[in-house]
Amino acid sequence: MSLIVQKFGGSSVADVEKIKNVAKRVVEEKKRGNQVVVVVSALGDTTDELVEMAHKINSMPEEREMDMLMSTGEQISIALLTMAIHALKEEAISLTGAQVGIITDSAHTKARILKISSRKIKSELSKGKIVIVAGFQGVDSNKNITTLGRGGSDTSAVAIAAVLKANRCDIYTDVDGVYTADPRIVKDAQKLKTICHDEMLEMASLGAKVLQSRSVEFAKKFNVPLQVRSSFKNQEGTYIIKEAKAMEEPIIRGIAVNKEEAKIIIKKVKDKPGVAAKIFKKIADSNINIDMIVQNVSEEGYTDIAFTVMKSDLKKSLKVITEISKNIKAGEVLADEKIAKLSIVGIGMKNHTGVAAKMFTALASQKINIDIISTSEIKISCVIKEKDADKAAREIHKAFKLNQKTK
Amino acid sequence: MSLIVQKFGGSSVADVEKIKNVAKRVVEEKKRGNQVVVVVSALGDTTDELVEMAHKINSMPEEREMDMLMSTGEQISIALLTMAIHALKEEAISLTGAQVGIITDSAHTKARILKISSRKIKSELSKGKIVIVAGFQGVDSNKNITTLGRGGSDTSAVAIAAVLKANRCDIYTDVDGVYTADPRIVKDAQKLKTICHDEMLEMASLGAKVLQSRSVEFAKKFNVPLQVRSSFKNQEGTYIIKEAKAMEEPIIRGIAVNKEEAKIIIKKVKDKPGVAAKIFKKIADSNINIDMIVQNVSEEGYTDIAFTVMKSDLKKSLKVITEISKNIKAGEVLADEKIAKLSIVGIGMKNHTGVAAKMFTALASQKINIDIISTSEIKISCVIKEKDADKAAREIHKAFKLNQKTK
Repeated sequence: MSLIVQKFGGSSVADVEKIKNVAKRVVEEKKRGNQVVVVVSALGDTTDELVEMAHKINSMPEEREMDMLMSTGEQISIALLTMAIHALKEEAISLTGAQVGIITDSAHTKARILKISSRKIKSELSKGKIVIVAGFQGVDSNKNITTLGRGGSDTSAVAIAAVLKANRCDIYTDVDGVYTADPRIVKDAQKLKTICHDEMLEMASLGAKVLQSRSVEFAKKFNVPLQVRSSFKNQEGTYIIKEAKAMEEPIIRGIAVNKEEAKIIIKKVKDKPGVAAKIFKKIADSNINIDMIVQNVSEEGYTDIAFTVMKSDLKKSLKVITEISKNIKAGEVLADEKIAKLSIVGIGMKNHTGVAAKMFTALASQKINIDIISTSEIKISCVIKEKDADKAAREIHKAFKLNQKTK
Repeated sequence: MSLIVQKFGGSSVADVEKIKNVAKRVVEEKKRGNQVVVVVSALGDTTDELVEMAHKINSMPEEREMDMLMSTGEQISIALLTMAIHALKEEAISLTGAQVGIITDSAHTKARILKISSRKIKSELSKGKIVIVAGFQGVDSNKNITTLGRGGSDTSAVAIAAVLKANRCDIYTDVDGVYTADPRIVKDAQKLKTICHDEMLEMASLGAKVLQSRSVEFAKKFNVPLQVRSSFKNQEGTYIIKEAKAMEEPIIRGIAVNKEEAKIIIKKVKDKPGVAAKIFKKIADSNINIDMIVQNVSEEGYTDIAFTVMKSDLKKSLKVITEISKNIKAGEVLADEKIAKLSIVGIGMKNHTGVAAKMFTALASQKINIDIISTSEIKISCVIKEKDADKAAREIHKAFKLNQKTK
């Protein structure tokens, strides 16, 4: 008998029919003779209305109270899903984070899991029940309700799978796996049978929104066998596995396109020690996340510093940066929203040369100009014009022969 | 410094503006130098939608899961109210039933409170905080979330007031107190300054929907000073007090009219021991509540048995009773929905004679026929035609001089 943890996101339980569909998937797994633990997110957008009300009442609601409010979303989901499973004549029980014993720190709205008790879940499983757990939530050591922040339910599922030593953790989403590229952009993109943790981490952080980075880190750390699969189709998805031998790996696993960043350039920054530190310290203090940073070669003691931020942070960023620029007596501040970041990811590139050259050649063949380049051991990212992004993705996909099966 | 428990019902927190209004009321009480604990119900009809979804998913949802679902309503209220109080720059903290330590039995959807811990509430009060508690909910000894059933939030408030030995428990509603009669029917009905527990219990059970009987019983048992007052007006309401000396009491405190019952008559029932028991056992087994029962004097070994049930139970009742009637070889079963129950209540009638006669005379003066009569030590109820009910209430109100002030 295997123990399977299944996680269903908000879009999978958005309405009555979808909840019934999920119940069916859960019961099928149980009927294969497995023990099943299910982690669910809040229904579709139930919590959006609550957040809106909260902000009408208090423009800066206390985070403890936001967690008290938000955690009701998952509590509703687990109750309804359990009722749907009962309607299929299977035994099931719903449990909140507090009832399971998911203990977190006290960092409300972005708490980190400290400990999960397996006692209650195991006891219910041993009675033959399917256990339905509220994702995204826990309690701190003083019984205050906490939430885990973005991607919290994925993290709950993987963490629960880790403490239960589950045979598999299946993340059900509205896509049927991880692809070599976004199939809406690259028509012959292939679904990957496997991808290793580090590759998945890069893909996730680069904008392939299949799994949250945090849950992948957890899976890597605790060696949880993870699968991403579709809530609506009945086929296998993509397994996220430990790194296999490089010999067998393709050089490139996939391509990610991220159109959610904007570029900011500070012109004529004095090229002396401590200036960059000053700039980025100030930005960090304003709680703005910076992605790529590039500094050009100095000319006559001055340099241009370019970096990317989330488009949603652009306005706030420009305000902060214009101020900094004045303080350090730098030149103009320019912004460009019409960019895209195109990245190739593959653990195989560690042992291969010429990967970057191949990527740049492919771009050049389409007369696409590269604006910023940034690399890591298993990733190469280029910032290009947004209008060129899809064409570039298709060209690179072809150049690396990602449209061939057997991944 | 006094300790005040305030309870606000669902209609008092139905939208953002009303929640802000409640926050103001709470902060005013705190600014008078009092410690304040607030018990809130779920916002307006948030839970109605959830119940509807539940029934679309499972026509007979398990009660444990219903409690898991329903209890989110109050959790939402406490978070939002706490945020509204924070917006007024007062310190406050929300607590679920589980966080307070409201321990109940395991009778889901109608649990009874076994024990309430005062530790957490007192600790937060001592930090100068207003404590906002979710009404209607608790946990059983296995941490399962339970709900207290109808009027549960009133009961939560009174029970919390009892364990905290609060100086007062104020129940805020959409009426401004208990009246000698329904002011919509009897124009010169007077608001009562006081009413004793037993009178309030009778009034509540007779259909004066101001307070749930259960909370009044609790208040009586634990001697909690209770006040019913308006959420929207700033004046004193009605105090529910211990029985004062009968000498000072008016004979009649008030009149209640209940139009929610229907009458059923079983004709020609054999008048021998055990027949009534058989009938009412069967009805009780079907979970139908019976109110008044009257058996006429036997004629030639047969009798007619009449009783009242809630109109909402009438259809179900008739099905059960027609079957019983066949089994015991009784005659026809008749039903009448067009009835009303008119009751007068007053602890003073214990020591006065002629109260019933005065009531019946008042009815006779308007040519109103009495169908069924039932009495207790402090109450006389008559079933009359529904169309006569309002006229009868006005006539009796006048006869007992209830329109005079100084109650």
